Amino acid sequence: MPNKIKIVEDKSVLVVHGPNLNLLGARETETYGGTTLVEIDKSLVRLGKELKIAVVSFQSNSEGDLVSAIQGARGGLNGILINPAAYTHTSVALRDAVLAVALPVVEVHLSNIHKREEFRHRSLLCDVVAGQVIGFGPTSYLLGLRALAELI
Amino acid sequence: MPNKIKIVEDKSVLVVHGPNLNLLGARETETYGGTTLVEIDKSLVRLGKELKIAVVSFQSNSEGDLVSAIQGARGGLNGILINPAAYTHTSVALRDAVLAVALPVVEVHLSNIHKREEFRHRSLLCDVVAGQVIGFGPTSYLLGLRALAELI
Amino acid sequence: MPNKIKIVEDKSVLVVHGPNLNLLGARETETYGGTTLVEIDKSLVRLGKELKIAVVSFQSNSEGDLVSAIQGARGGLNGILINPAAYTHTSVALRDAVLAVALPVVEVHLSNIHKREEFRHRSLLCDVVAGQVIGFGPTSYLLGLRALAELI
Amino acid sequence: MPNKIKIVEDKSVLVVHGPNLNLLGARETETYGGTTLVEIDKSLVRLGKELKIAVVSFQSNSEGDLVSAIQGARGGLNGILINPAAYTHTSVALRDAVLAVALPVVEVHLSNIHKREEFRHRSLLCDVVAGQVIGFGPTSYLLGLRALAELI
Amino acid sequence: MPNKIKIVEDKSVLVVHGPNLNLLGARETETYGGTTLVEIDKSLVRLGKELKIAVVSFQSNSEGDLVSAIQGARGGLNGILINPAAYTHTSVALRDAVLAVALPVVEVHLSNIHKREEFRHRSLLCDVVAGQVIGFGPTSYLLGLRALAELI
Amino acid sequence: MPNKIKIVEDKSVLVVHGPNLNLLGARETETYGGTTLVEIDKSLVRLGKELKIAVVSFQSNSEGDLVSAIQGARGGLNGILINPAAYTHTSVALRDAVLAVALPVVEVHLSNIHKREEFRHRSLLCDVVAGQVIGFGPTSYLLGLRALAELI
Amino acid sequence: MPNKIKIVEDKSVLVVHGPNLNLLGARETETYGGTTLVEIDKSLVRLGKELKIAVVSFQSNSEGDLVSAIQGARGGLNGILINPAAYTHTSVALRDAVLAVALPVVEVHLSNIHKREEFRHRSLLCDVVAGQVIGFGPTSYLLGLRALAELI
Amino acid sequence: MPNKIKIVEDKSVLVVHGPNLNLLGARETETYGGTTLVEIDKSLVRLGKELKIAVVSFQSNSEGDLVSAIQGARGGLNGILINPAAYTHTSVALRDAVLAVALPVVEVHLSNIHKREEFRHRSLLCDVVAGQVIGFGPTSYLLGLRALAELI
Amino acid sequence: MPNKIKIVEDKSVLVVHGPNLNLLGARETETYGGTTLVEIDKSLVRLGKELKIAVVSFQSNSEGDLVSAIQGARGGLNGILINPAAYTHTSVALRDAVLAVALPVVEVHLSNIHKREEFRHRSLLCDVVAGQVIGFGPTSYLLGLRALAELI
Amino acid sequence: MPNKIKIVEDKSVLVVHGPNLNLLGARETETYGGTTLVEIDKSLVRLGKELKIAVVSFQSNSEGDLVSAIQGARGGLNGILINPAAYTHTSVALRDAVLAVALPVVEVHLSNIHKREEFRHRSLLCDVVAGQVIGFGPTSYLLGLRALAELI
Amino acid sequence: MPNKIKIVEDKSVLVVHGPNLNLLGARETETYGGTTLVEIDKSLVRLGKELKIAVVSFQSNSEGDLVSAIQGARGGLNGILINPAAYTHTSVALRDAVLAVALPVVEVHLSNIHKREEFRHRSLLCDVVAGQVIGFGPTSYLLGLRALAELI
Amino acid sequence: MPNKIKIVEDKSVLVVHGPNLNLLGARETETYGGTTLVEIDKSLVRLGKELKIAVVSFQSNSEGDLVSAIQGARGGLNGILINPAAYTHTSVALRDAVLAVALPVVEVHLSNIHKREEFRHRSLLCDVVAGQVIGFGPTSYLLGLRALAELI
Repeated sequence: MPNKIKIVEDKSVLVVHGPNLNLLGARETETYGGTTLVEIDKSLVRLGKELKIAVVSFQSNSEGDLVSAIQGARGGLNGILINPAAYTHTSVALRDAVLAVALPVVEVHLSNIHKREEFRHRSLLCDVVAGQVIGFGPTSYLLGLRALAELI
Repeated sequence: MPNKIKIVEDKSVLVVHGPNLNLLGARETETYGGTTLVEIDKSLVRLGKELKIAVVSFQSNSEGDLVSAIQGARGGLNGILINPAAYTHTSVALRDAVLAVALPVVEVHLSNIHKREEFRHRSLLCDVVAGQVIGFGPTSYLLGLRALAELI
Repeated sequence: MPNKIKIVEDKSVLVVHGPNLNLLGARETETYGGTTLVEIDKSLVRLGKELKIAVVSFQSNSEGDLVSAIQGARGGLNGILINPAAYTHTSVALRDAVLAVALPVVEVHLSNIHKREEFRHRSLLCDVVAGQVIGFGPTSYLLGLRALAELI
Repeated sequence: MPNKIKIVEDKSVLVVHGPNLNLLGARETETYGGTTLVEIDKSLVRLGKELKIAVVSFQSNSEGDLVSAIQGARGGLNGILINPAAYTHTSVALRDAVLAVALPVVEVHLSNIHKREEFRHRSLLCDVVAGQVIGFGPTSYLLGLRALAELI
Repeated sequence: MPNKIKIVEDKSVLVVHGPNLNLLGARETETYGGTTLVEIDKSLVRLGKELKIAVVSFQSNSEGDLVSAIQGARGGLNGILINPAAYTHTSVALRDAVLAVALPVVEVHLSNIHKREEFRHRSLLCDVVAGQVIGFGPTSYLLGLRALAELI
Repeated sequence: MPNKIKIVEDKSVLVVHGPNLNLLGARETETYGGTTLVEIDKSLVRLGKELKIAVVSFQSNSEGDLVSAIQGARGGLNGILINPAAYTHTSVALRDAVLAVALPVVEVHLSNIHKREEFRHRSLLCDVVAGQVIGFGPTSYLLGLRALAELI
Repeated sequence: MPNKIKIVEDKSVLVVHGPNLNLLGARETETYGGTTLVEIDKSLVRLGKELKIAVVSFQSNSEGDLVSAIQGARGGLNGILINPAAYTHTSVALRDAVLAVALPVVEVHLSNIHKREEFRHRSLLCDVVAGQVIGFGPTSYLLGLRALAELI
Repeated sequence: MPNKIKIVEDKSVLVVHGPNLNLLGARETETYGGTTLVEIDKSLVRLGKELKIAVVSFQSNSEGDLVSAIQGARGGLNGILINPAAYTHTSVALRDAVLAVALPVVEVHLSNIHKREEFRHRSLLCDVVAGQVIGFGPTSYLLGLRALAELI
Repeated sequence: MPNKIKIVEDKSVLVVHGPNLNLLGARETETYGGTTLVEIDKSLVRLGKELKIAVVSFQSNSEGDLVSAIQGARGGLNGILINPAAYTHTSVALRDAVLAVALPVVEVHLSNIHKREEFRHRSLLCDVVAGQVIGFGPTSYLLGLRALAELI
Repeated sequence: MPNKIKIVEDKSVLVVHGPNLNLLGARETETYGGTTLVEIDKSLVRLGKELKIAVVSFQSNSEGDLVSAIQGARGGLNGILINPAAYTHTSVALRDAVLAVALPVVEVHLSNIHKREEFRHRSLLCDVVAGQVIGFGPTSYLLGLRALAELI
Repeated sequence: MPNKIKIVEDKSVLVVHGPNLNLLGARETETYGGTTLVEIDKSLVRLGKELKIAVVSFQSNSEGDLVSAIQGARGGLNGILINPAAYTHTSVALRDAVLAVALPVVEVHLSNIHKREEFRHRSLLCDVVAGQVIGFGPTSYLLGLRALAELI
Repeated sequence: MPNKIKIVEDKSVLVVHGPNLNLLGARETETYGGTTLVEIDKSLVRLGKELKIAVVSFQSNSEGDLVSAIQGARGGLNGILINPAAYTHTSVALRDAVLAVALPVVEVHLSNIHKREEFRHRSLLCDVVAGQVIGFGPTSYLLGLRALAELI
């Protein structure tokens, strides 16, 4: 569980990465760029420090584990930054988890999902999150963290 | 696996709880009420005794684990009472598991899914189960167990 | 009018049977079983006694008469148990009557409507009733009455 | 009830006329022609005699009464010739009545419903009747009776 | 039949009220207001006198009776003011009756049907009536009568 | 070309049989019955004689040849009886040919197309023919010829 | 800006005419009648006097100018009578302007839009206005003004 | 034309505000907040200074003027930040203008458009812009400017 | 095969006429005009001479023959002018033939297909041809030939 | 207003260019080619002289101004050649303007709109114009003018 | 007819090639590869020998001829391998022919039809054949023959 | 992880079995046959030897584990043979995993998915795999392996 880490900042957020994002930087670089997930996490921690927010990350290919991770954010953490990847378009369970935790949530996407297949245009989370940042590569995460900082 | 418990009653059923139901009573109480899952399970066991039916419960956030649990009911158990929660609307795998086990299955829902989002109106299991009980809160489970008792 | 009967129990409910249900037990027995409507009504009265609820029944093939019967439940009765049969899928007038009487209403169906023709999957009442019991034959009525007993 | 008439022929059929057909010959004659319903019934009786079939007619503007009339044909009569008029497109109750009586049913229409409004192209009875005769004015009824004669 | 009343004005119109409108003023007052149907009819008669038009009213919960009432307006009366209520969205029979009587017809609605459920946005009569007045409460009827006065 | 046959009756009609009907009686007899196309043609000639109408038949698996056959009926013949079979649902060319010949056309089907696959419910000819006879087996043709006799 | 005119009545309303209405009386008179927009405005002023309401009119072919005109009604005026013409079916900007001004708005149409092309059946304003008057020619405006008088 | 302002920073961007945004802070504050457009523009200029980017703003209710403003950004400016408001959902002309100027464009929305009416879920620009920032109130603009700064 | 004719001009094109066009001038003249196909072909040859292009024509009611004719244009000819008539809306085979020959193709229609039945609005060839000329009667062919002359 | 120019030819037509066409030749040249709008207008004037038709051109990015320009063609001019560009797919106002002027109108498009985004396949003008020329670049205009010359 | 060839093997199958496949190897080689139809047929004969199955091939551009060829396989042959090409998506007649012959049928496609235009995703034969092999170029045929060998 | 097995052949492929396939041979044998998954794997290994390809198998009910297994094939293995079972129709995550590994993938299905429920007709993988083999029972796997052998 990612939320067992001790947190020293005043505020802390969970960053949730969906399926196949573990391959970032090594897969389809023309679409997703060459930055790895570790590098994104590092840049988030760096920006978090500037914003006085501790950043905890979690990646899984399993819908159930992602649901549990979101549930785990209840109580201890102050907000969630999520890139649900493929589950954006198919998971009611993630949507329900977001509804269940009473926290501000920001949804981000690396690529502009509206330029891709028809089924990627619909997000099952889009109307239960506070807002979305879409299409700016790793910058989407950083802008999303800034947005979350305003909300918490 | 939930089906390893020794059963002394003549008949036994598996109760399957889908994702996020572990938070019941602590989450969105205006929609789902304040009863916890443990309390529901206890009241099912109690009614089960009255009906001479042993009740075994299983909850998971993972679609795959729920599929495996349903598969595990083959042979030993006599029926399944299922609240698939979010997977009601997205899981063909659960549907296939229900088709694969040759047991009577009853589907229950706490809230009236027809009063909620459009995508919650469709159940992928509804035409492979024996019947449905929808909208009566924890009572849905108890009525579902009574229905199952008639079928097994 | 079915609501003129004198009622001695503390609570009383109206049971409304839609079109063609008068032929129950004599028609399409492979779908609807061999139990007649009179037998169902009797078993409801019996369960009603156990639950301290008086049960009044009404059947009609006419949409208008069913609307009037539901209207007649205002004031005197405490709840409605309805199997709208064919009108489930076509009657906005029944829906409006349910909205107009300020009473808890439970919808029941003998057969699993989701296993039948596409147009039977949609109920025009489903989101204005408290809940639904679907697919358990005459048991649907009995479970529906139990659900109604909890609500009133 | 139309089925109380004493029948001397070997076989007998019920002719069911839906709503507004009572105005036939007096209404929209450019669409429906100038023949009245009484004239159609007479010509059916005449052809019935030739085919050794007694013909009993019933018209109503009420869906419920039409359902009851069809139900009444069970047992005594040998087949049904029906022009459901407006209820063709909206009545599941008529469909269920046709399913409930175990008799051959032939559906007829005076006008070619496919030349009219979109919603008139769909018949809720078309797949539960034996066949259809559409678009030949009063001749549709006569051909329908001939078809029914073959079936009974 | 409502059209048997003797009429002394030069012109006369039939006002047709659909199902559940008999409960007006006593039901869902936040949607339909506290005015009763009797009060609406009285205000119509009053305005009718001012406009030199006799007003005859008819309410029924039965689709068939409403069809017959509209048919009865042929010959004697000069126009029809109709609030089809729930049958607005489901009755082809009412539409056919409007087509069958060669009279100007005005459709009115108390509430703004476009602010309500999706299925209430479609009227099966809207393209066979002269025009519509929607959303002004009892005033809708009065404006509808004024519109009818212009047409007859 | 089928229209070169010399005709001695006062009136004559072309009977057009669509693709695969040449196998009638030898194929899917549970759906189409055991009567062959030759037998149907003979019974049509026999009824034609009774009705003083000469009957000329044409069958082809080729859409283009069927179009040409219909075109050939212009001038010499008085009407067309057509079972377009599979082309019912896909051929705009047949529709255009029917529009191009200024003759009464009757469409017939052996089986009730509404009981079969969804795509068979739509006929591309239905609104350009005079009427349809559907679902009575070989009798459909005979009734269609009677209808045509009325029209010419 | 139309709202700069000095107003002496107690109440005042803005009448907004959409694109192409400047040609009224000179264009498609079979659909829209021979009355000009000036004549309609005059009759509105006349009725306004009777109702103690000042009437200010504005017509434009430009969506943006119509939006600005509606915005201009904030503060000074008491209600808006609008015939959005072509923009009824395409302008979210007009809808937003109506939402932005906190005033009662009544929508009117000269012709019965439901008798015309499919795309004219949908109004993007219909659920944000108080109500609609449709299909009575210039009388639609007068009835709309009466409705507005009730609301302000 | 907004692009005539002299620019001293190295880079400059055009901020385009769509219809009704001129009322910001004075209209529907529960949806859009109490910040005015002038305040948003000031905060953008301030952030622009920090990012070494000159910021030029333009607001119009007219689709055509917004198209012209976007066209005017060609050559001189380095990017566009756009909140198309109502035109998001209806303007192909704005889309074409974005395609015509060879500049990076970022789309922003104050409110979460996915929580609102169905027709607001679709953006006609979403697949021709670089990315979107949705739902964070005035912060959406600031994040959008940061994203644009990365792109130019 | 139409492509066996010896060609003396520098360039040559195949004109393909679809089903029922052989009846042109003799059929539905209110829709298609009184000009015959022979006259159209002559005027095309005349214009072809002016443009230094040899014109070869082919008409068939058979989809397969039209496919073969288009295939035959490979190599020898320089372009194709096609009026696919009814096959416009149903033939993927013609589309594939157009894709298979590496030649510029222009699609023409005599009538404005958008003023006719819904299914005629869709062309299966429209996105694989260079362009379309629609609605100008025989002039459509002549303009199409001019367009083709520019392309080859 | 473009129609104030003095005209010496016998006939004159208005050429209407929609939004963003002012950038022609400078924008997306791979789609629209390198010819400028001025060059197209010149070539139209040149062809107009040959055909004895005066040609007046008008371009605007504003829907309202285009509507006004079309209205201005009433009386003085003999026909309209229009490339509505983006408004092809969204403007009912342009459609109404075309309906309002009683003149022959020809619609042209530079690119083949059927090869582009789905929403560009639908033209809101296509069934109210005489015909269309699509996909031949600047030649589309010249062919359109020839077509218009035939019509006026 | 392809089935007149004398067959010496124990089993024999008909290979049916749809329209435009005669151009294989010479047309769109980037999609379909450079192998010709003759080469495919040869490799099928070769594999057939290995599998003790005689292979007879037939290609036509005509839907009717393909129907007749399939009909011809009745009796003498043991199975059919079909690549319906363009008719896959449009021919109910081919589907009916497959239903009419009581033989195992395997459907093959050279290209992956799911990577191409939307309308190519639907096969009208897919649910009446035994199975499908899609996307492996000429190998699709060979695998299809192996599958057929298992079935006969 | 299935890819840790040491491989001695030149090439190796991963066989991925989706949810519920572990019950093969014991479940719904009328649909899926009596062969077990172990037997299928053995026959694949046997054919693999013949084709000089090592075969590694993996089955899971968990979507996430299947995603991880596909990811694990990167680098070491040469291709993937996948029967995604229920996830065929619901998993974008599997699709993304297939896109992420740069390997040839072949999709197989035991039953003909087009003969089953509507939702089983759509595969979310079909356009990202090389090809499909559908409907031949265990033979589908063997043919799929042959196809894969051609591709690697």
